[in-house]
Amino acid sequence: MSDIIDLSREACAAGQRYIEAARAATAGIVAPDGSPDPSLIEREQRRVHGLAWAATTLAALEALADWAARARRAGRFGAIEEQTLRIGFGEYLHQLTSALPMGQGEFVRPVDLDAGAAADAMRADPAVAHFLTQGNTAQTRAQLAPLLAEGALPDEAFGDETLDMIRAQFRTFTAERIAPHAHQWHLADELIPIEVVQQMGDLGVFGVCIAEEYGGLGLGKTAMCLVSEELSRGWICAGSLGTRSEIAGELIGENGTPEQKAALLPKLADGSILPTAVFTEPDTGSDLASVATRARMQNDGSWQITGAKTWITHAARADLMTVLCRTDPDTPGYGGLSMLLAHKTRGTQDDPFPDEGLSGSEIEVLGYRGMKEYTLGFDGFAVAADGLLGGAQGRGFKQLMRTFESARIQTAARAVGVGWNAFDLARRYALERRQFGKPLIEFPRVADKLAMMVAELVMARELTYSAARHKDAGKRCDIEAGQAKLLAARVAWTAADNGVQIHGGNGYALEYPISRLLCDARILNIFEGAAEIQAQVIGRGLLVGQP
Amino acid sequence: MSDIIDLSREACAAGQRYIEAARAATAGIVAPDGSPDPSLIEREQRRVHGLAWAATTLAALEALADWAARARRAGRFGAIEEQTLRIGFGEYLHQLTSALPMGQGEFVRPVDLDAGAAADAMRADPAVAHFLTQGNTAQTRAQLAPLLAEGALPDEAFGDETLDMIRAQFRTFTAERIAPHAHQWHLADELIPIEVVQQMGDLGVFGVCIAEEYGGLGLGKTAMCLVSEELSRGWICAGSLGTRSEIAGELIGENGTPEQKAALLPKLADGSILPTAVFTEPDTGSDLASVATRARMQNDGSWQITGAKTWITHAARADLMTVLCRTDPDTPGYGGLSMLLAHKTRGTQDDPFPDEGLSGSEIEVLGYRGMKEYTLGFDGFAVAADGLLGGAQGRGFKQLMRTFESARIQTAARAVGVGWNAFDLARRYALERRQFGKPLIEFPRVADKLAMMVAELVMARELTYSAARHKDAGKRCDIEAGQAKLLAARVAWTAADNGVQIHGGNGYALEYPISRLLCDARILNIFEGAAEIQAQVIGRGLLVGQP
Ligand SMILES: Cc1cc2nc3c(=O)[nH]c(=O)nc-3n(C[C@H](O)[C@H](O)[C@H](O)COP(=O)(O)OP(=O)(O)OC[C@H]3O[C@@H](n4cnc5c(N)ncnc54)[C@H](O)[C@@H]3O)c2cc1C
Ligand SMILES: Cc1cc2nc3c(=O)[nH]c(=O)nc-3n(C[C@H](O)[C@H](O)[C@H](O)COP(=O)(O)OP(=O)(O)OC[C@H]3O[C@@H](n4cnc5c(N)ncnc54)[C@H](O)[C@@H]3O)c2cc1C
Ligand SMILES: CC(C)(COP(=O)(O)OP(=O)(O)OC[C@H]1O[C@@H](n2cnc3c(N)ncnc32)[C@H](O)[C@@H]1OP(=O)(O)O)[C@@H](O)C(=O)NCCC(=O)NCCS
Ligand SMILES: CC(C)(COP(=O)(O)OP(=O)(O)OC[C@H]1O[C@@H](n2cnc3c(N)ncnc32)[C@H](O)[C@@H]1OP(=O)(O)O)[C@@H](O)C(=O)NCCC(=O)NCCS
Repeated sequence: MSDIIDLSREACAAGQRYIEAARAATAGIVAPDGSPDPSLIEREQRRVHGLAWAATTLAALEALADWAARARRAGRFGAIEEQTLRIGFGEYLHQLTSALPMGQGEFVRPVDLDAGAAADAMRADPAVAHFLTQGNTAQTRAQLAPLLAEGALPDEAFGDETLDMIRAQFRTFTAERIAPHAHQWHLADELIPIEVVQQMGDLGVFGVCIAEEYGGLGLGKTAMCLVSEELSRGWICAGSLGTRSEIAGELIGENGTPEQKAALLPKLADGSILPTAVFTEPDTGSDLASVATRARMQNDGSWQITGAKTWITHAARADLMTVLCRTDPDTPGYGGLSMLLAHKTRGTQDDPFPDEGLSGSEIEVLGYRGMKEYTLGFDGFAVAADGLLGGAQGRGFKQLMRTFESARIQTAARAVGVGWNAFDLARRYALERRQFGKPLIEFPRVADKLAMMVAELVMARELTYSAARHKDAGKRCDIEAGQAKLLAARVAWTAADNGVQIHGGNGYALEYPISRLLCDARILNIFEGAAEIQAQVIGRGLLVGQP
Repeated sequence: MSDIIDLSREACAAGQRYIEAARAATAGIVAPDGSPDPSLIEREQRRVHGLAWAATTLAALEALADWAARARRAGRFGAIEEQTLRIGFGEYLHQLTSALPMGQGEFVRPVDLDAGAAADAMRADPAVAHFLTQGNTAQTRAQLAPLLAEGALPDEAFGDETLDMIRAQFRTFTAERIAPHAHQWHLADELIPIEVVQQMGDLGVFGVCIAEEYGGLGLGKTAMCLVSEELSRGWICAGSLGTRSEIAGELIGENGTPEQKAALLPKLADGSILPTAVFTEPDTGSDLASVATRARMQNDGSWQITGAKTWITHAARADLMTVLCRTDPDTPGYGGLSMLLAHKTRGTQDDPFPDEGLSGSEIEVLGYRGMKEYTLGFDGFAVAADGLLGGAQGRGFKQLMRTFESARIQTAARAVGVGWNAFDLARRYALERRQFGKPLIEFPRVADKLAMMVAELVMARELTYSAARHKDAGKRCDIEAGQAKLLAARVAWTAADNGVQIHGGNGYALEYPISRLLCDARILNIFEGAAEIQAQVIGRGLLVGQP
C-alpha cells in the first residue's frame, strides 16, 4: 500500500481538479463574459458560497497534509497522527463529493455546483477512493478513542523554539490564571479583572505583531494565532482582548503617520492603552461600506463625530477608539470613509462614558462576556486633528479590509481555542460519567463525537496557521483568512454543540462550563464577518482570480 | 411528466427498498444468528443508529407524501404545497443517498451501512432521480421565498372540524396570552404565572387525552399534539406544562386502580393537581432501568422513599409526583422498579419544599424556563399505601416505557412548535432588516434557510401526527414515537440556529426573542430520551422487527 501521506497529497490533487471544475462551471454561469456579474453572483449565491465552502474544505485537507508531512519529518507522525489524517481525509473528501455542511441544514452538493461528473471522477481517483472507504470508519475512530481517553493529542509542535515556547507559556498562563475563574466571570457577567488584563499586557499579548522598535514582540501572525488560541482555550474573552489591539496595532502600524505610530504603538503594545473597534452601526453591519456616522472637520482641523454605532466590544473600559466614519458625505460607498483614532476617557462602572459627546449603553448577550458590548451615541464628539489615520481621508475602508484579514485569522485562532476547550470538557466528562455500567467514552456515538472534534480541530488549526503564513508573506489574503475563519467557526460551534450533547442534561445546566462554551461558540459564525459574508468574499475572490 | 404526488409515492417505495437493504446488511452484522446480539449492537452503534436515522428520514417523506395527498383531496394542494413537497423530497432523498446528518458533524452515509449499491439503485429510480435534480433546487427555493414573504404557509388544516378548531383556539390563546409575555418571563427566570396555568387548565390543556368520564376532553394524541405545538409556538414552557399531565394522566389512566383514577384524573384534567415526573437520578439518566431510589413498604402498607433525584421539572409547584423507584432491591434492573403516586404540598417561593422528608434545590438552566428544574432529596418521604400505581409492584418501568411513547410524541410536537416560533421570528426579521439596500429575505442564503425550515417543519410535524395516530391505534409504537421525537428535535434545533444566524448580531442579544429560542431548542435533543437513546430504541426495534 502507498504511503498514507503520499496518498493524502494525491487526494488533494484530485480535489484540486474537482474544485477547478466547479469553479469553471460556476464562472460559466456568473461570469458569462469573463468577469463576474454582481447580479448573477447574487442570484447564484448558494452556488458561489458552495464553491467557497468546497475550496475551503480542500484547503483544510491541504493544510492537514502539510501538517502530517511536517510531523513525519520531525519524527512525530505516530498512530494518533495517522488516525487524525485518515479521519480528516475520509470525512472531508466525503463532504466534498457528497454533501458539505455550510451550516445546519444547509448542504452543498456536487449537483448544486454542476460538478456531478467531476465529483464522480474525484471519487474514482484511487487515493480518494482509499480514504472514502478506509478513512473515517468506525474502526479508525475506535482506534483513536482509547488514545484520546489516555490524554494523547495529535502533534501540535512547530519545531520552532520560539513558537513552541509561546504555546507552552500561554497554556500555563491560561491554565493558572484564566481557566479556574472563567466560568465564574461569565456567570457574574462582569468585566474580566483589570489585573488579568495587565498580566496579559506584561506577557506581550497586546503587542505580538507590533514592531520591536515600538515596544512590541515583533512576531508574525502565527505567533499571534498561538497566543489567541491558547488564551481562548480558557475563555473566549481572554483570547479576544487581543483582537482589538491586533486591529488597532495593525491599522496604525501599516497606515499611521510616524507620529501616530510613535505615540500609540508602545502603549497599545504594553496594554496601557486599551483600544476598541468602532465600525458597526444599527443599520449597517455586513455592509460596512454604507457606514453613515459622520465626522466633520472643524476650522482648526480637528473632527467632530456624530452618529450611532452599535455592538462595540469593550467600549466603556477602552482608551482609544478606531472609528470608521464618513468624512466625505458627497462620496457614497466606501470612498467617503475614513478611520479616526479617537481618544476617550476610560469609563468606570458608575460612569461608563464620562466624555462629552459620547454616550453608551450595554447590550446584554448570550456569551462572549467579560468585555461587554455597547451601543454608542456620538454627538459632536471631538477628535484631535492628528486623529485621522495616516493623515489621509477616504482610505478608511481599504485600511480596514486589509486589517480584517488579520482580525479574521485571529478570530479563526480564537475559534480553534474555543473548540479545544469544548473538546477538553467533553473528553473529561465522557471519562468520568458512567451510564449502562461503563464510561460514556466507551459508547461509539460518544467516542465518535470526540474523534471528529479532534480531526476537525486539527484541520481548522492548521488552516489557520496557513492563513497566518499567507498574511506574513505580505500578499492580499482575504480568501485565505476568510477560509480559516469560516471553517474554524463552524468547527468550534459543532464541537460546542456536541460537547453539550455528551454532557446530557448537565450540558444544559449553567453550573457546567460546557453550557458557557455553547453560548461563546455561537458568536463565531456571526461577528468579524458573518459566515455568509466570508463565503461571499471567498467565492467572489475565487471567481475573480484575485492576485 | 408524472403527477408529483405519484412521483413522491414512487420515491418512497424506492426508499423502502433502500432501507430494507440497509436493514438486512446491518442485521447480517449485528444479528448473525438471526436475533440481535447486544454487544454487536453496541460495537456497531453508529451503523445501527444510522439505520434508525435513515428509516426516520424515509418515514418523514412518507408522512409528507400522505400530507400532500390529503391536501390534494381537499383541494388545498397549491403552489406552496408543491414547493414544500419538492424541497422536502429533494433534500431528504439526497440525505438518504449521500449523507444524513444525525447531528452537527455526525453524518451517516450509505457506505457506513454497507448499502452503497442499494443507494445507487435508489438514485437510479426515475422518481428519486427526478427529485434529486429538480427537488431542492435554487429555483424551487426562489419560488417559495416570495410566498413566505407574503405570509403564506403550507397547508396545515386537518379537514376535521374538532382538530381545526383546536388549532385555531390555541393559536389565538398563544398569541394573546403567551407570546406577548414569554420573553419577559424567560429573562426574569420566573415561574409562569399561576393564572396562566389556570387559564390553560380551563381550556382543557391538562386533560386532552383523559377520558371524558374523568373530566378530560377524551381526545386522541393528535389533538394533544396540536395543543402542544400551538402553545410551544409561543413558548416552550407553555407547551411543556402539559407534558407532565400527559405522563401522569396516561400512567394512571392506563394502569391505575379504579380508586386512583377516580381520585386523581379529574383533578389532573382541570389542572387543580399539577403533577411532576420524578424519574432521573444523579447517576442515572439514560439508563433508567438502574434507578436506585428506594421505596420501602411500612407495616401499614404505606411507603417511605429514600434517595436522590435530579432534573425534576416543576417540582416545587407540583402537587403530585410520579416517582420511579426501586421497591424490590433484590431484583436488579427494571424488574425491581415500581411507580409511586406521591402527594406533596405545593411549595411557595419562600418555602419551595415544605414537606417532611423532601428537600430540593433549583438547577439554573440555559432555557426551558418557567417551571424550573430541581434536584430532590428524599429522606423517608411518606407515601400512602394506595400510592402504588395499579396496586402492583415491579411494573413501573414498563408502565413508564409505554407512557414515554406519548411523552415523546408530545415532545416532538413541542419541538415542531418551537421550530415554527423560530421560523416566525426569522421570517419577520428577514423582511424588516435591510442590508446592501434590500431586505435580507431577498438574499438567497437567507431565503434558503427559511425555505428549508418550512419544508423540514412540515415533515417533522406530519411525522409527529403520524406517530400520534399510531399511538391512538393502541399498538406499541416506540419506533414511531422515537422517530418523531428524533427528527423534530433536530429540526427545531436547526431552525433556531438558523434563525439566530439570520438575525446576525442581534440574534446574540438577550433582548431579541430568537436568542431564547436558541436556548430553548437545545433541550429537545437531550431530554425525554437523548437523541442517541432514541436512535438506539429505533434501531434495535427495526432489527428485532418489533411487533
Ligand atoms: C458579541 C458581538 C460583538 C461585536 N463586537 C463588535 C465590535 O467590537 N466592533 C464592531 O464594529 N462590531 C462588532 N460586532 C458587530 C458584528 O461585526 C456584526 O454583528 C456583524 O458584522 C454582522 O452584522 P449585523 O449584525 O448587522 O448582521 P446583518 O448584516 O444584518 O446580517 C444578518 C444576516 O444576514 C446575512 N446577510 C447579510 N447580507 C447578506 C448578503 N448580501 N447575502 C447573504 N446573506 C447576507 C448575514 O450573513 C447574517 O446572517 C459585534 C457583534 C456581536 C454580536
Ligand atoms: C431541562 C431538563 C428538564 C428535565 N426534566 C426532567 C423531569 O421533569 N423528570 C425527569 O425524570 N427527568 C428530567 N430530565 C432529565 C432528562 O431526562 C435526562 O437529562 C436525560 O434522560 C439524559 O440523561 P442524563 O442527563 O443523565 O445523560 P446521560 O445518560 O449521562 O447521557 C449523556 C450523553 O451520553 C449519551 N449516552 C448515554 N448512554 C449512551 C449509550 N448507551 N450509547 C450512546 N450514547 C449514550 C447520551 O445520549 C448523552 O448524549 C430533564 C433534563 C433537563 C436538562
Ligand atoms: C462585505 C465586505 C467584504 C465588502 O464588500 P463590498 O462592499 O462589496 O466591497 P468590495 O469587496 O467591492 O471592496 C471594496 C474595495 O475594497 C477592496 N478590498 C476589499 N478587501 C480588501 C482586502 N482584503 N485587501 C485590499 N483591498 C480590499 C476591493 O478590492 C475594492 O477595491 P476597488 O473598488 O478598488 O476594486 C465588507 O463590508 C465586510 O467585510 N463586511 C463584514 C463586516 C465585518 O466584518 N464586521 C466586523 C466588525 S468587528
Ligand atoms: C434506554 C431505554 C430505552 C431502556 O433500555 P433497556 O434498559 O435496554 O430496556 P429494554 O429496551 O430492554 O426494555 C426493557 C423491557 O421493557 C419493554 N419495553 C421497552 N419499551 C417498551 C414500550 N414502549 N412498550 C412496551 N414495552 C416496552 C421491553 O420490551 C423489555 O421487556 P422484556 O424484558 O419483557 O423483553 C430507557 O431506559 C429509556 O427510555 N431511557 C431514556 C430515559 C428518558 O427518556 N428519560 C426521560 C425522563 S423525563
